[in-house]
Amino acid sequence: MSSFSERLYARSQAANSVVCLGLDPRPEAHALTHPSNHGTSAATARAVRDYFSAVLESTHDLVACVKPQAAFFEALGLPGLEALAALLEQARALGLPVILDAKRGDIGSTAEAYARAYLSDGAFSVDALTVNPYLGLDTLEPFIRAAQTGQRGLFVLLRTSNPGSADLQELLLASGELLYRRLATRLAERAGSLALSSDGYQLLGVVAGATAPEALAAVRSALPRSLLLVPGYGAQGGGAADVAAAFDDNGWGAVVNASRSLTYPEAARAATSLREVAAAAREATLAMRADLQGVTANR
Amino acid sequence: MSSFSERLYARSQAANSVVCLGLDPRPEAHALTHPSNHGTSAATARAVRDYFSAVLESTHDLVACVKPQAAFFEALGLPGLEALAALLEQARALGLPVILDAKRGDIGSTAEAYARAYLSDGAFSVDALTVNPYLGLDTLEPFIRAAQTGQRGLFVLLRTSNPGSADLQELLLASGELLYRRLATRLAERAGSLALSSDGYQLLGVVAGATAPEALAAVRSALPRSLLLVPGYGAQGGGAADVAAAFDDNGWGAVVNASRSLTYPEAARAATSLREVAAAAREATLAMRADLQGVTANR
Repeated sequence: MSSFSERLYARSQAANSVVCLGLDPRPEAHALTHPSNHGTSAATARAVRDYFSAVLESTHDLVACVKPQAAFFEALGLPGLEALAALLEQARALGLPVILDAKRGDIGSTAEAYARAYLSDGAFSVDALTVNPYLGLDTLEPFIRAAQTGQRGLFVLLRTSNPGSADLQELLLASGELLYRRLATRLAERAGSLALSSDGYQLLGVVAGATAPEALAAVRSALPRSLLLVPGYGAQGGGAADVAAAFDDNGWGAVVNASRSLTYPEAARAATSLREVAAAAREATLAMRADLQGVTANR
Repeated sequence: MSSFSERLYARSQAANSVVCLGLDPRPEAHALTHPSNHGTSAATARAVRDYFSAVLESTHDLVACVKPQAAFFEALGLPGLEALAALLEQARALGLPVILDAKRGDIGSTAEAYARAYLSDGAFSVDALTVNPYLGLDTLEPFIRAAQTGQRGLFVLLRTSNPGSADLQELLLASGELLYRRLATRLAERAGSLALSSDGYQLLGVVAGATAPEALAAVRSALPRSLLLVPGYGAQGGGAADVAAAFDDNGWGAVVNASRSLTYPEAARAATSLREVAAAAREATLAMRADLQGVTANR
């Protein structure tokens, strides 16, 4: 079996795309299209599943991977998690790598349990998981072990795309470094001891947002062996020029996520059928793919 | 309706206890007692539910609150989450405050979705949630708003009990502070603008481990209006003397968690029935309650 980064690279080449399709269900949108169901999470969860199933079906050949956001499914309770499991199954059937954006992190045996939940076989099994480093580098080890065993990947939160990301991530250390730069150095050390795949990367990736292009360039340079997961394109304000620094000289090494702008595009608001939604999502994804092909043209 | 800290205080007074009962299911333990079910998560989840249901029933009058660890339920897939929902319902019926240890954290509308999942009504509704601050203080605001609306509480990860906790939490800043002390100051500022409850605390608490007693004293002093959730007692090595600094002059202001040592005590290993497990858990909880009464005697 190939490694996570090899599977991601193969799919990216086949689709000629570095787009990561974010699945962030917005229940209010589905309550509107299913007014009679408003208020029951089971009905909303069914509407969410059908909506995103149609979007996946219409866009899967245009994207490198898909990134469900766990929070929105958890907010719909058990029916929401059933919908997530169904969408994960669909993505697997389509051969589409899945990065679950769950930002998990805990200590010792608890981290092992999260790794079991998402990085081994089961209903919530995915190709890669986002994880939070605040508890310390030892807490990443159970995830790394599970990723090694199961040929999965990790994306450690490093520099996020929100306004307050600097509160901790850009604290100035006594050493003269910014915190996220220090963390990048530590992660690069760890990544250095992990086996490189044929695409030039290994299992330990990082999250670095498009909303701070200079930080993105610094992260790319500090972590030459790590895939970057780049949020913040589209609805959050980043464009192709802002994410260009995430890629290596071969136009690889990163995927760029967009959620709302692809799955709830302007053109889908007046849609009266899932077929129209799917067509609008395909148009939006085609446009983003073309936009990013401009910055990865030398691959 | 009373606030979270008032409900917790009332329960703590009624039980004469600052014990937080941690629910961290260890599937291998249940696979052993249910050998024929080994390998199916539905059967293991049922065994977990029955086991912890018996423990809750036998200990609820001895504890201030209960803290399920989300990871272990997620690791059992959908049946595990059904078991969690059932145990939450049982705790609610027993009037026992629940702190869900899920260490969630994300930006903007995603943080809102996590807050909806756990701090508003629904199958996973709890009294308080643990949250991770790495993404920045703005990412705590959706949780604070939900906690205000629903009279819930939060515990922000500040200084954890694992060996690697110093990696980020004790980085020395250019200002001369350790990172967790700087974060404590910022959280104290935010807590200062939140309404105090009759017990002297407000909704924004923190997690500070028993394995670093000097840090615990610093946190108590920096955050006089914040409840402390103290992990690390028992199996992780902390004792009553190590947690004494978490309490205020009235013997309030903190709850001390133990999981394995209460729910899988030595004496339960040879148990041949849930009745014996329940009795062993009650003995262990009585001993921990008495141990901690020594340091909160002046309440």
